[in-house]
Amino acid sequence: MKRTITHLADGRELIYFDRRDDADRSAIDRRALEPRPVASELRYDPLTEEWIAIAGHRQTRTFLPTGGTAECPLCPSSETRSSEIPSYDYDVVVFENRFPSFSTNFGTYEDPGGLSEVRPAVGRCEVVCFTSDHDSSFSQLSDSQVELVMEAWADRTAELSQIEGVEQVFCFENRGAEIGITLAHPHGQIYAYPYVTPRTKLQLGAARRYTKGNLFADVLAAEREAGVRVVAANELWTAFVPAAARWPFEVHVYPHRQVPDLAALTEAERAAFAPLYTSVLRAFDGLFGVVMPYIAAWHQAPVRVDRELGYLHLELFSIRRAANKLKYLAGSESAMGAFVNDVLPEEAARLIRSQIDH
Amino acid sequence: MKRTITHLADGRELIYFDRRDDADRSAIDRRALEPRPVASELRYDPLTEEWIAIAGHRQTRTFLPTGGTAECPLCPSSETRSSEIPSYDYDVVVFENRFPSFSTNFGTYEDPGGLSEVRPAVGRCEVVCFTSDHDSSFSQLSDSQVELVMEAWADRTAELSQIEGVEQVFCFENRGAEIGITLAHPHGQIYAYPYVTPRTKLQLGAARRYTKGNLFADVLAAEREAGVRVVAANELWTAFVPAAARWPFEVHVYPHRQVPDLAALTEAERAAFAPLYTSVLRAFDGLFGVVMPYIAAWHQAPVRVDRELGYLHLELFSIRRAANKLKYLAGSESAMGAFVNDVLPEEAARLIRSQIDH
Repeated sequence: MKRTITHLADGRELIYFDRRDDADRSAIDRRALEPRPVASELRYDPLTEEWIAIAGHRQTRTFLPTGGTAECPLCPSSETRSSEIPSYDYDVVVFENRFPSFSTNFGTYEDPGGLSEVRPAVGRCEVVCFTSDHDSSFSQLSDSQVELVMEAWADRTAELSQIEGVEQVFCFENRGAEIGITLAHPHGQIYAYPYVTPRTKLQLGAARRYTKGNLFADVLAAEREAGVRVVAANELWTAFVPAAARWPFEVHVYPHRQVPDLAALTEAERAAFAPLYTSVLRAFDGLFGVVMPYIAAWHQAPVRVDRELGYLHLELFSIRRAANKLKYLAGSESAMGAFVNDVLPEEAARLIRSQIDH
Repeated sequence: MKRTITHLADGRELIYFDRRDDADRSAIDRRALEPRPVASELRYDPLTEEWIAIAGHRQTRTFLPTGGTAECPLCPSSETRSSEIPSYDYDVVVFENRFPSFSTNFGTYEDPGGLSEVRPAVGRCEVVCFTSDHDSSFSQLSDSQVELVMEAWADRTAELSQIEGVEQVFCFENRGAEIGITLAHPHGQIYAYPYVTPRTKLQLGAARRYTKGNLFADVLAAEREAGVRVVAANELWTAFVPAAARWPFEVHVYPHRQVPDLAALTEAERAAFAPLYTSVLRAFDGLFGVVMPYIAAWHQAPVRVDRELGYLHLELFSIRRAANKLKYLAGSESAMGAFVNDVLPEEAARLIRSQIDH
């Protein structure tokens, strides 16, 4: 694997991850780009004790462009067109988001009053292009391509963890117009947050109060024993629908070995993850014969605290609950955080299992 | 005000709230209805220490019907058509939801395993029809009609609080196809939950740790003093955009007097709320010249605990962030609970204020 760091015309970092050691990544970004926006503000909500990022500058960002490869900013550049990637090809590429929610490029911020407080939203937001093939998808990647993506994720997790003020690194993929995805090109994102996110805080609080062992490990063991919700497994990984799933189709993927983050996975674990995960993704698309919108979220231990409690795992879920029906988050979920799931988890597991290719 | 209790053909309760004491509510529901489904299950998520309602039977419920008044189940019945409301007219009517997430009609539930546990989702779900006029909206209701709705909310809050096992009563309105609303007829819902909801738990935890006074009262006082985010106020109520707003357009409406729930409001407070709230709703629709999708959520103190900490208020928010753009909850919000808001709260307040009719 070869790693090449370069910079875009506005100073943003771009990193190539290549399978071949002789890849030429000397192409230069010659576009005239606007200066990069300053970092968002973080504002404190005293009623929930959480930080909210307020990113006024992001209002102007790209929203659902309809063009194909001719306009795609994530396709490689060509002789006649400059995209975000200067090279005419790539294997996997990562670059800093042009409209980041978190950044190290601070501005000045006024005290908002109202019992709130403000600080710069320090951190970093990156885009990960999973393949140069615009018309592919994560589910269609070869095993070796998935392993290269995992090397990129591991590299970025380790590197972003070094930024002063960063508390958590989150690698994820949003896919599908139904959840507002702007670009069809197969890609994901990485957020380096300046705080431990609310859901991670909740999970680690529960893990701390659980005294019989590691909570995540015990959930995994109990699901493997119950079996009825396991959708796929091999020697190193298990994928299951959680017993108290929030989403109509939700699968959690755990390595059998407790590790804090992606950087701690072995080569063997990366290799074993690839075919298992893409088979689950293909099963998702098979459920209703339509491309499933989904969110795939890597839960990693925080950078500085509670690393011994954390257990790397992936939470994959879709908002589609039937061929022609979506699960909307309305009053109960959005306002009160109280989830109602219309699909029995055992039934969801049975349907997903029936679509796994053998 | 006259209150008449009757029953629908499948046994569900229906309650008329009438302005006139001589309203005739003797009409009988003669439809042949399927028996009512049994209550959902509640399953415990050990990773977040929360209960999730699993409501398999709800998959078959109505999803975005396109018909107008001819098919609307919330319009009054007519000689040729039977809706959910047997009478040929009504002022305000409340009835039990036909596909409830929570109910007192228990079934049997199997242990799901996987470190989870199960119990019946005891509680009740009701539908509140704000007016018999299919083509109206809450923002267009007369002040006296809003007051009648508030009497109905207060009545239901008091009554549902009496159900054994109910811990919180939530009155809310979901509006707009963009958030999955099935029926255009002006209506809201009431959920009586068998637990204190996650967001209320979070707010009350913060309130308990805050020792300088009542947290909500101090937030209100600080927002009134800062002023820059206040969008409307009168002698008894203030509406403001919170300093750390999560949603592009979000307004919180507080009574100046700390009360635990809607049942505790005085007649004068109900009267003062009506014109203030509908003016904010009209301002929402004025922002982009389109009907705004929104969620309006009444935060009430739990039924049995922490009543002295709670402070009744309404949280109103929209997922529309620009004329042609929606705020989607994707990876950061849905998976990690980490909100990024693209609109500066002071700018949102300025825009809303500019639309308030004087």
